[in-house]
Amino acid sequence: MNQKFEATDALYLDDLRIGQRFTSGTYHMDEDRMKAFAAEFDPQPFHLDEVAAQRSIFRGLAASGWHTAAATMRLMVESLPFAGGMAGLGGEIAWPRPTRPGDTLRVESEIIEIVPSRSKPNQGIVIVRSTTFNQHGEDVQKFTAKIIVFKRPVETNSLTMKPDGS
Amino acid sequence: MNQKFEATDALYLDDLRIGQRFTSGTYHMDEDRMKAFAAEFDPQPFHLDEVAAQRSIFRGLAASGWHTAAATMRLMVESLPFAGGMAGLGGEIAWPRPTRPGDTLRVESEIIEIVPSRSKPNQGIVIVRSTTFNQHGEDVQKFTAKIIVFKRPVETNSLTMKPDGS
Repeated sequence: MNQKFEATDALYLDDLRIGQRFTSGTYHMDEDRMKAFAAEFDPQPFHLDEVAAQRSIFRGLAASGWHTAAATMRLMVESLPFAGGMAGLGGEIAWPRPTRPGDTLRVESEIIEIVPSRSKPNQGIVIVRSTTFNQHGEDVQKFTAKIIVFKRPVETNSLTMKPDGS
Repeated sequence: MNQKFEATDALYLDDLRIGQRFTSGTYHMDEDRMKAFAAEFDPQPFHLDEVAAQRSIFRGLAASGWHTAAATMRLMVESLPFAGGMAGLGGEIAWPRPTRPGDTLRVESEIIEIVPSRSKPNQGIVIVRSTTFNQHGEDVQKFTAKIIVFKRPVETNSLTMKPDGS
């Protein structure tokens, strides 16, 4: 499937329910990419240098939490096929343990709340809790996101008929 | 100053107080870098394609929120000189409006809470609220972070003397 965002397999607000789960593919945390990301956005010794990292609170080289977050987003984009894409308003993020070079990450997401918009009848906010695991099944990130999701447009819903059948 | 994390200008837990503010330098949101970041980590049409973005909820090309977050981290690393670096446990993030190509970002941070650790006497958690502004003074990100900060090691504090002056 090349067109990930085609309406044919996109999920609208109407298709979602609390407790629904989504499992992602995997993301490989390459050491060189990890260091380059840190050099660009989070240039701290424990993300860049093995010796400094050993002496730090991380006790070894650790990815920037924002690299873990970005990798998680990639996995979420591929595994949560919301219609119109995933526009996040924000959320709560936590990094219980660091991501290490060579780690293989995957994300499990669950819908924990659905809040229809009162001012915008065609959309709602979906609260999605996504946990990012490493290859040992340990959680490296927890992210509870508020995501805007749209209702299915009426004109494409062929099951909607007037009482007279027209 | 090449060594940003030398103890000479590093701030320890002892040096921090509620209400303390830090102002960052600036980060230019280059359009090509913005699209490349999105292609790697958040490949959604409204981050990649001008025409698709115009039709989207963003009404124009928007940076991935994670790019805004990563750029904010870069500005925080440069403007919050905590001793031992900035190791974040996580926090609450919100994107009130999108970052656009060509935007110039800056970050204002304020210490809003200081919580000494009960189990680890040499450290504490500092709650820092960082707001990322664009060149129009509009907020594009709010991030309230929990950051581990260390107390000044006793052996390097030359002002600590015994009552007899030794």
